[in-house]
Amino acid sequence: MTARSQTYWTGDVAELLRVREGFVLSSIDPGSTPGYGSDKQQAAADLAAGVAELDLLQEKLFAQSRVGATDASVLLVLQGMDSSGKGGIVRHVVGSVDPQGVSLASFGAPTEEERAHDFLWRVQRKLPPAGRIGVFDRSHYEDVLIGRVRELADPDEIERRYEAINEFERQVAASGTRIIKIMLHISYAAQKARLMERLDRPEKHWKFTPSDVDERTRWPHYMAAYQTVFERTSTEHAPWYVVPANRKWYARLAIQHLLLEALENIDPQWPSAGYDVALERERLAAT
Amino acid sequence: MTARSQTYWTGDVAELLRVREGFVLSSIDPGSTPGYGSDKQQAAADLAAGVAELDLLQEKLFAQSRVGATDASVLLVLQGMDSSGKGGIVRHVVGSVDPQGVSLASFGAPTEEERAHDFLWRVQRKLPPAGRIGVFDRSHYEDVLIGRVRELADPDEIERRYEAINEFERQVAASGTRIIKIMLHISYAAQKARLMERLDRPEKHWKFTPSDVDERTRWPHYMAAYQTVFERTSTEHAPWYVVPANRKWYARLAIQHLLLEALENIDPQWPSAGYDVALERERLAAT
Repeated sequence: MTARSQTYWTGDVAELLRVREGFVLSSIDPGSTPGYGSDKQQAAADLAAGVAELDLLQEKLFAQSRVGATDASVLLVLQGMDSSGKGGIVRHVVGSVDPQGVSLASFGAPTEEERAHDFLWRVQRKLPPAGRIGVFDRSHYEDVLIGRVRELADPDEIERRYEAINEFERQVAASGTRIIKIMLHISYAAQKARLMERLDRPEKHWKFTPSDVDERTRWPHYMAAYQTVFERTSTEHAPWYVVPANRKWYARLAIQHLLLEALENIDPQWPSAGYDVALERERLAAT
Repeated sequence: MTARSQTYWTGDVAELLRVREGFVLSSIDPGSTPGYGSDKQQAAADLAAGVAELDLLQEKLFAQSRVGATDASVLLVLQGMDSSGKGGIVRHVVGSVDPQGVSLASFGAPTEEERAHDFLWRVQRKLPPAGRIGVFDRSHYEDVLIGRVRELADPDEIERRYEAINEFERQVAASGTRIIKIMLHISYAAQKARLMERLDRPEKHWKFTPSDVDERTRWPHYMAAYQTVFERTSTEHAPWYVVPANRKWYARLAIQHLLLEALENIDPQWPSAGYDVALERERLAAT
């Protein structure tokens, strides 16, 4: 399926980016633009066209949910190394949708209360209601990424989590939520440049913490942890997409496209009135 | 204080719209545009200019809150009759801000759990964290508006609530939250036209419920309830503004202006780095 408003795609982006059996992360070029040329200007036009379409589809879905006519929602899970552009996706892709239709949750280091529960407890509570586009800025995958790399849990527990995640996502999908899992994939060199920019520009200092450099030294371990995540948790009901993200314009366009496809696939319709329109028109006219 | 980016104001909008001692709701013309001409095109230019300024101020505030350097936030309380344009404010004014900086809560009929608590319980839990612009789409004021008009609580209880609200808001303001309370004020005739439009256009049917006509027949009772709200709860720390809202462009511009003023008044600054920038640059360069 192709989003109608984005016209410059040369290939099926969902197919090109989807993690399938045999996927190898290290074979993906973070600077590539699969299914699209390198024309940044066309991309800007496509992104702008997609905004209106996304907004309309979302409003229809929201309308249906308000009259109880659908339990469908979309959940966008955003993962990626520091500075890979998660915040930019929230701002420039999700930000174009009516805030009433968006349910955004960010997951940092767990609080004491959260640590006292199973790792899925805090994400379960933030699932999007029907009719909404939910966004997880980081997610339960941190528990098998930083959790594994920094040995925050023992190997048996990490092992248990992959299956727990699959079962959890299976239930979420069965309840009507389309799950789209994204890894924003930047290169080691691109991260260096982006972190350096945060150090060079005083208005970006707040986005940097010294631990960013510490985490960066563990880069190969994170890539290995992502590779395992893809092998263990890319499923039919909750597929992973690895989005090359060195070029921000490409990542934004590709993710907008995946959202558009998910919504087109739900195919929301304006709900019919649950009341007698002619009668209400008369009642209103009489006031 | 005047928002720098909006240049066509001819008067101090905050002062013009603010509810003061002796305020009489029935003397306000919902079709007026206090402090502004009737030039819709200038208004569009001002609104666009305000978007960038609002976004920047909000990001600065968010940045400060992330490093623990401020406990400030803004809370916009939106009240108004059906079809007065609350959703449009969320979409077109608040929607221009990075979603990560916004905390939106809508309050409908209370759930069973909510009814089992004091009426302020559910709003307390939705207060914006530091650094955010919080928006209440309807609020605790419903408990003294529909609560009074539909006699959902007895008069003694309604009476108690005004004081409880003032005390609650005093604490919220003392904790760093700038409270801006808005009544979107439309005329009885304008509401009729807007509701009729919802009946005339199938894609708007979902926004209408027959109870909208029922509530409309209680219009004078609602206006009286608002008048009492203004007399009892417009305070220094949590002032009310009555925004003429027959012209949507005016209401949006005026509310954007009030948000800009609140943020300028907080005067957020990019936080200084809590680490040694030169050292981190070296560490990063070595990777």
